[in-house]
Amino acid sequence: MTPAGGPIIRPVSSTDVARLAGVSQSAVSRTFSPDGSVSARTREKVLAAAATLGYRPNRIPAIMLSGRSHMVGVIVGGLDNPFYATVLDRFAVALRGIGLHVLLVQVADSLALDAALDQLAGYRVDAAVTALAVGTRRAADALSALRIPIVCFNSRLTSSWISTVRSDNRAAGRDAADLLADRGVRRPAWMAGPRANAASQERGRGFVERLATHGLAPAATMQGADTYQGGYDAIRRLLSVSPPPDGLFCGNDLMACGAIDALRQAGGLSVPGDVLVMGYDDIPQAAWHSYDLTSFDQQVDRMVAAALDLLATALAGPPGPAGGRTLNVPARLVERGSTRHGG
Amino acid sequence: MTPAGGPIIRPVSSTDVARLAGVSQSAVSRTFSPDGSVSARTREKVLAAAATLGYRPNRIPAIMLSGRSHMVGVIVGGLDNPFYATVLDRFAVALRGIGLHVLLVQVADSLALDAALDQLAGYRVDAAVTALAVGTRRAADALSALRIPIVCFNSRLTSSWISTVRSDNRAAGRDAADLLADRGVRRPAWMAGPRANAASQERGRGFVERLATHGLAPAATMQGADTYQGGYDAIRRLLSVSPPPDGLFCGNDLMACGAIDALRQAGGLSVPGDVLVMGYDDIPQAAWHSYDLTSFDQQVDRMVAAALDLLATALAGPPGPAGGRTLNVPARLVERGSTRHGG
Repeated sequence: MTPAGGPIIRPVSSTDVARLAGVSQSAVSRTFSPDGSVSARTREKVLAAAATLGYRPNRIPAIMLSGRSHMVGVIVGGLDNPFYATVLDRFAVALRGIGLHVLLVQVADSLALDAALDQLAGYRVDAAVTALAVGTRRAADALSALRIPIVCFNSRLTSSWISTVRSDNRAAGRDAADLLADRGVRRPAWMAGPRANAASQERGRGFVERLATHGLAPAATMQGADTYQGGYDAIRRLLSVSPPPDGLFCGNDLMACGAIDALRQAGGLSVPGDVLVMGYDDIPQAAWHSYDLTSFDQQVDRMVAAALDLLATALAGPPGPAGGRTLNVPARLVERGSTRHGG
Repeated sequence: MTPAGGPIIRPVSSTDVARLAGVSQSAVSRTFSPDGSVSARTREKVLAAAATLGYRPNRIPAIMLSGRSHMVGVIVGGLDNPFYATVLDRFAVALRGIGLHVLLVQVADSLALDAALDQLAGYRVDAAVTALAVGTRRAADALSALRIPIVCFNSRLTSSWISTVRSDNRAAGRDAADLLADRGVRRPAWMAGPRANAASQERGRGFVERLATHGLAPAATMQGADTYQGGYDAIRRLLSVSPPPDGLFCGNDLMACGAIDALRQAGGLSVPGDVLVMGYDDIPQAAWHSYDLTSFDQQVDRMVAAALDLLATALAGPPGPAGGRTLNVPARLVERGSTRHGG
């Protein structure tokens, strides 16, 4: 690129700072390096010159030398579910707190994962976190080939490079069954997310197995998109062929909000008067007064902290596989009006 | 770091690939470089060896040489507003489409911006996009000191390095006034976001100036947090001191959802029977049946495309300031039940 007249504009370099401060370029480098040794007097001159020029150190040479970028690849699917927006937000904050930065990798689905991995490898990210619901062996192999520590968020990938942090989905499913049984529900229903969503499947498994101990079985099981519209449509289909359930546990809050609107508007039913409804994730909308939805808080901050512990341990140790661990974080029941008769 | 016994594990290098393919390291580099010249036969051998070893090229040396990282810093505030989650999602997809990657910079507020700028400068991002509501001169100066093209999303920063893409907030405010006046509203109210939110202020300005042409003036003006709870609280405060408005325009959809719930539950009023309500952003929740909220779609895809055009133009030209432009994208009125009497 040739400048169209005028001086070439480029970032202020350490050489520019050294010239203004009247010190060597190496003194500037040492001033801005965490382990660099430099006299108080020189440091002061360098910092003054840097402030004057608006100099900010370039990390790229250090990445070249160390092979460590201090970037963590965070792989997410769509951010339409407010839960994943929260997860990303919390990871960005927590990573910055320990001096790491987020290279965001948005992939539509697991088929797009391979191109994403080129990106992570190309920038030599130190580690990766994936919040993608990819539970396939192929995805695990591709991620493992990066030979960096990887933490999987609420999914089931495992390999010697991959550790997993997940909500204790099965235990929460059991808690949901206990609560509905305790409220006198006789015709419980379960609304699952897509088959590939392992977390949702676990929630349903815990729910159904605990219903049995109460002498109950699902009066209906629905499966579909884990979106608001998916929940809305599933209830409309159900009501067109069968009587309504009197209790409903949904694989996530988005589906639960859609289900509540369909029960009320398409079914002319009252929630919680006729049907008790529970969701999962405790997204902000669960607390909105129109829904007032009983849900499970995944305790994202604890999950993120656990994920960072796993990464930090792996990064501090000798290079090599440090995965294969699974941490379960209990989900906290948040009871609201949608499961209170007369609420 | 010393490996605790066993071989040192490191990413597969171009030298490893060259050895297996029986070619020079330079031939491997050329195979993976967009402009590299290499014979078909060599390319085939290199690609086979790379596939066998799981090799992925390292971008860092090229970044050193070219000074271009092909990363774009995307600065966001919290992602609690689904609108900003959507914006981030669309930018990630669009940038990837032109071979650029997202270095995510989450900052709580404009005070945290300076640390974020160290990060952007350190990684030598090619450009930055900011979706932060920072309209201060200090923020503009700090961003400009990076000497890279910057696009500001729906804010009012300007400098020779910064261009802005924004929704045509003022025109939309006028459209809102026209719609409510057309529906016979006599006591319109305006609910603004925080004073620092320039976009929200513009919406209110357009609304109030057009109300005047209909012989109307705001019966109430509220100001507060641009969240669901902010909208809920503002209506509760209003209803405790004055009769309800019969039409309400809110600075965003989150506030409008909170306002609707407060009007119905705290006020015992019907929306739209007693009060017509409009929001802004067309977040997914606006279409949820409990709200069925009339809103303005900012046409995020068009705004993102416009932002990338500005960046691409700046990056293709000679190094130097290429900012100072402002593009307005019209907002599209999406009418739903919340402004239909008898809806």
